[in-house]
Amino acid sequence: MSAAGPSCAVPSHVIVIFSGGLDSTTLAYWLTGQGARLTLLSVDYGQRHGRELLFARRTAAALGAVHYVADLRPVGQLLGGSALTSREVQVPDGHYTDASMRATVVPNRNALLLDLATGLAITAGAGAVAYGAHSGDYAVYPDCRPEFVAAYQQMVRIANAGFLTDEFGVLAPFISMTKADIASLAARLGVPVGQTWSCYRGGDVHCGTCGTCTERREAFALAAVDDPTAYLAG
Amino acid sequence: MSAAGPSCAVPSHVIVIFSGGLDSTTLAYWLTGQGARLTLLSVDYGQRHGRELLFARRTAAALGAVHYVADLRPVGQLLGGSALTSREVQVPDGHYTDASMRATVVPNRNALLLDLATGLAITAGAGAVAYGAHSGDYAVYPDCRPEFVAAYQQMVRIANAGFLTDEFGVLAPFISMTKADIASLAARLGVPVGQTWSCYRGGDVHCGTCGTCTERREAFALAAVDDPTAYLAG
Repeated sequence: MSAAGPSCAVPSHVIVIFSGGLDSTTLAYWLTGQGARLTLLSVDYGQRHGRELLFARRTAAALGAVHYVADLRPVGQLLGGSALTSREVQVPDGHYTDASMRATVVPNRNALLLDLATGLAITAGAGAVAYGAHSGDYAVYPDCRPEFVAAYQQMVRIANAGFLTDEFGVLAPFISMTKADIASLAARLGVPVGQTWSCYRGGDVHCGTCGTCTERREAFALAAVDDPTAYLAG
Repeated sequence: MSAAGPSCAVPSHVIVIFSGGLDSTTLAYWLTGQGARLTLLSVDYGQRHGRELLFARRTAAALGAVHYVADLRPVGQLLGGSALTSREVQVPDGHYTDASMRATVVPNRNALLLDLATGLAITAGAGAVAYGAHSGDYAVYPDCRPEFVAAYQQMVRIANAGFLTDEFGVLAPFISMTKADIASLAARLGVPVGQTWSCYRGGDVHCGTCGTCTERREAFALAAVDDPTAYLAG
């Protein structure tokens, strides 16, 4: 990341896939700083960490953004089997890039979320959809890689020719950044990071040991910025 | 279409997007004839022609196929505004390729449906997803064109690298066929076409005048095969 932060052309109205976590919250603040009007799209897909939706609602209100929560619980059931949606599959401890993190893959998730966001963009006349993929996600999640963003953008323009402009964009401005870069950017933008939720385990406070907690703590430490998060362990 | 019908490589297990209409029902029968085991995926997205789900259930039972109905009504509300989901937008009469048929476009629909089918394919270990797009759909629906199928297949393989084989296919075996070709094929395969539902208006019998009814009647007439459908008008 350059000292100036990420850069990409930002249209006047953007649909943001918004979990209420550190990445998408920082993305929402950054896009707002670029002058965009935001529509935030959260998804209830039966994730065991439903607490993130509470944080998403608070941040949306703080930003004064339109916020939709799409109820995809029936779809979550249909696609069951991920540790994020099934109580029969354990959320693994350890580092985010471990092979065990495959258990946290929801089949075809980002294509599905981006396709919902694109549908909303067509309905609302927005010029782009955005999501908070970053380089730390590459190892485990193929749908967070730059080649996916390019292929998705091409597909969705073809899928909706005549209903979207040829300039319709899929924005992933953090895709070349590490999570530590995002933590730095959050600090610089004054993002209230204590109001973001990362833990996949779904307790009342961050567990401190699951993949996303491990990654979150590392990011703040590497960025040498204050981490206001209360962790249960570690 | 050649006299032998469509041709494409069909893996042993296929997820089929299945509305219960003429196209997807004929597709299901054709794939079964090719030796594939089918999982049928219908979607309740709040369509006013919910009656099609009744027909879908019957045909699934007749085929002995696993059948899921994904409840996407909350998503239908989110993407509202199409004549297919909103009671405030009139279903237009007339020919399917008229400009007025734009009112029946559900934003980004086929990408969303294929995303669901692909997620299910990953969960169930199926080798392909299939849908019944045909050349009559091109004019109105960009997500029924060959270039969309190619772009979607490329995207979804990249999106799920490591979770899908490189041979994972998006099958649209009718894509170069007209609806009359499908009606011919249905007759040849012995598909019980009286058990399929097309009408977008959602009455107890086919209205006979909406776009899909007009198209359905034309197809049977052009194919010179018996049309057992009861129509309200025309």
